[in-house]
Amino acid sequence: MNGSSAPIVPFTADDYRARMDRTVREAVGAGLAGVVVAPGPDMVWLTGYAPPADTERLTLLVLTPDGGPVLVVPKLEAPDAEGAAGASALTLRDWTDGTDPYGVTAPLLGTTGRYGISDNTWALHLIGLQEALPGTSYTPLTNALPMLRAVKDTREVELLAAAGAAADAAYEEIKRVSFAGRSESEVASDLAALLRRFGHSRVDFTVVGSGPNGANPHHEAGDRIIEDGDMVVLDFGGLYEGYGSDTSRTVHVGEPTEEERRVHDLVREAQRAACEAVRPGIACQEVDRVARAVIADGGYGPHFIHRTGHGIGVTTHEPPYMVEGEEQPLVPGMCFSVEPGVYLPGRFGVRIEDIVTVTASGGRRLNTSEREMAVVR
Amino acid sequence: MNGSSAPIVPFTADDYRARMDRTVREAVGAGLAGVVVAPGPDMVWLTGYAPPADTERLTLLVLTPDGGPVLVVPKLEAPDAEGAAGASALTLRDWTDGTDPYGVTAPLLGTTGRYGISDNTWALHLIGLQEALPGTSYTPLTNALPMLRAVKDTREVELLAAAGAAADAAYEEIKRVSFAGRSESEVASDLAALLRRFGHSRVDFTVVGSGPNGANPHHEAGDRIIEDGDMVVLDFGGLYEGYGSDTSRTVHVGEPTEEERRVHDLVREAQRAACEAVRPGIACQEVDRVARAVIADGGYGPHFIHRTGHGIGVTTHEPPYMVEGEEQPLVPGMCFSVEPGVYLPGRFGVRIEDIVTVTASGGRRLNTSEREMAVVR
Repeated sequence: MNGSSAPIVPFTADDYRARMDRTVREAVGAGLAGVVVAPGPDMVWLTGYAPPADTERLTLLVLTPDGGPVLVVPKLEAPDAEGAAGASALTLRDWTDGTDPYGVTAPLLGTTGRYGISDNTWALHLIGLQEALPGTSYTPLTNALPMLRAVKDTREVELLAAAGAAADAAYEEIKRVSFAGRSESEVASDLAALLRRFGHSRVDFTVVGSGPNGANPHHEAGDRIIEDGDMVVLDFGGLYEGYGSDTSRTVHVGEPTEEERRVHDLVREAQRAACEAVRPGIACQEVDRVARAVIADGGYGPHFIHRTGHGIGVTTHEPPYMVEGEEQPLVPGMCFSVEPGVYLPGRFGVRIEDIVTVTASGGRRLNTSEREMAVVR
Repeated sequence: MNGSSAPIVPFTADDYRARMDRTVREAVGAGLAGVVVAPGPDMVWLTGYAPPADTERLTLLVLTPDGGPVLVVPKLEAPDAEGAAGASALTLRDWTDGTDPYGVTAPLLGTTGRYGISDNTWALHLIGLQEALPGTSYTPLTNALPMLRAVKDTREVELLAAAGAAADAAYEEIKRVSFAGRSESEVASDLAALLRRFGHSRVDFTVVGSGPNGANPHHEAGDRIIEDGDMVVLDFGGLYEGYGSDTSRTVHVGEPTEEERRVHDLVREAQRAACEAVRPGIACQEVDRVARAVIADGGYGPHFIHRTGHGIGVTTHEPPYMVEGEEQPLVPGMCFSVEPGVYLPGRFGVRIEDIVTVTASGGRRLNTSEREMAVVR
């Protein structure tokens, strides 16, 4: 059950080939000799391949302008790699336990030159490359090409929309469970089960911050028993068909006080204004400034203690970041969270978050569930 | 429900302090200026701390002979780190979003010197250190101190024994489910649920290799429908109270043929002989040789296509490795798998695996479930 009735069309080898080609072009444009990619989100996005486990055994995608893409894999895992959706767009080069995988990889790179490397590549493997090719140097891929995965194509946006619709469906259901008298962890567990029921393959976080715990934006869910009169911040997400969801809503157990309602309205207004500000060409920091100005004008500026948003795609946190100092202009296809909050230490917190995609002329929210404060029992 | 009736005593700050002290001593003995440790098994073992997620935000433990242990953490996660069991044995140094975490870390290291670094440290962070301290160099921790976590203390062995007992209990139950007519994935899912029911907090693998799939030692579990007459390799494990289990048994759906029984008996004899060979002072490779000789003598030498075993502790695969060429002598407290197998392509496979710990005078198996071929339905 997701908001889009269209079936999900899987990415093909041509899609992955186009991504790898673009990566090489952008790398060359940034003065790099090529890019090396470890298992993780970069590799999934470029090839559709995720090895059975990320281990000491080297798996590495090498992209250079001179040769076609080559995926170095342990021989035992070659059948897995051959089954990846992007396999026919690259060459597999396997190595056997007991041989030197860096010796297999080195001839694919030059003896000099600066290469981009996936941020999460194991140090073991980076050191292996540095020792095999002492004339080469390496720079983290998100420093060199921060926006590589940031602009989504139509199909990616549709997948993010489907992930958002599934998260919205989970939110509609969670409002019906009992909050009062149960622990945050129990509600979090219900929320995780709902995300899975509505099609998430992986749940990354289910924050349930009740009462004073809601005032810590980093709180996840604990033993605290939720009480009548509590504000409860819910922030939940994971992967749906390989793309992320990330949604926050703040609910109240029983009737809120006048102040609670006022703070909630303020955050909702800040979130609405920031979403409305989204359009091509404005800087990321502008989205942050709009949300921050509303909260400051309402008198709660010092209580909005984190950035306004982060990109989302094959991971739930990635560039672009909606934060002061980020001058990157918005581009149609970028997808990110807009999630202002107010945190009153020892008392309560409020956060409201939707995923927004940049369109040709503005922004489109990929979450559509109610943002008004829901009263739960 | 676990094999040991004694309650599990948690590790204390003193335990973690002793581990950190020993690590510094061993590092100095190996000519290192210190050790830097990223989130993951090394950090869990040294401090009891696992951050909420392993991300681009730097979390790093620095161990040097000059200063006490320092844990660098993102400010938002400092409360999590303060709650770790080993927190009082170290100093926390936090850094704020927007500042340079490598600038905070650099003064804790020398401007020159060679440091051991956790294998799985993100390349992003290693490059950050290399750029902040161009006079330093780094070597993967498992190359520099491969046996750092290999010798377990009494409490660790008891935790591994409890993990093994929980896995044995899961095996006793899985023998009672229906195999014939169900997919490998369904049985794998039952097995995972049983491991959790008997106390595993995390399931890392549940291999169900039926018929010809059993002949691929790297097969996990797929859509194949298990049939009457199939051999089925089961290989399952995960974490129990922070320590690993890893067990293999090979069962048969209905009555086996004479050849199937003969191959199973041969593997069982090889596994028994290798377990009996375990004692302090012999080289790891000797355990491999003993198992391999039995299988070669039985005429199946070319069909035993992997090493005999691997260490286990806070991870399910770590040094020491029972493999030809590994001359490390066994030391009381080492814990590892003994898991010979025979794989007949296109037909079937057999693998039998227990965890064994080295005692003062020999070896002790931490799995005790039946190794005879169970006939399932």
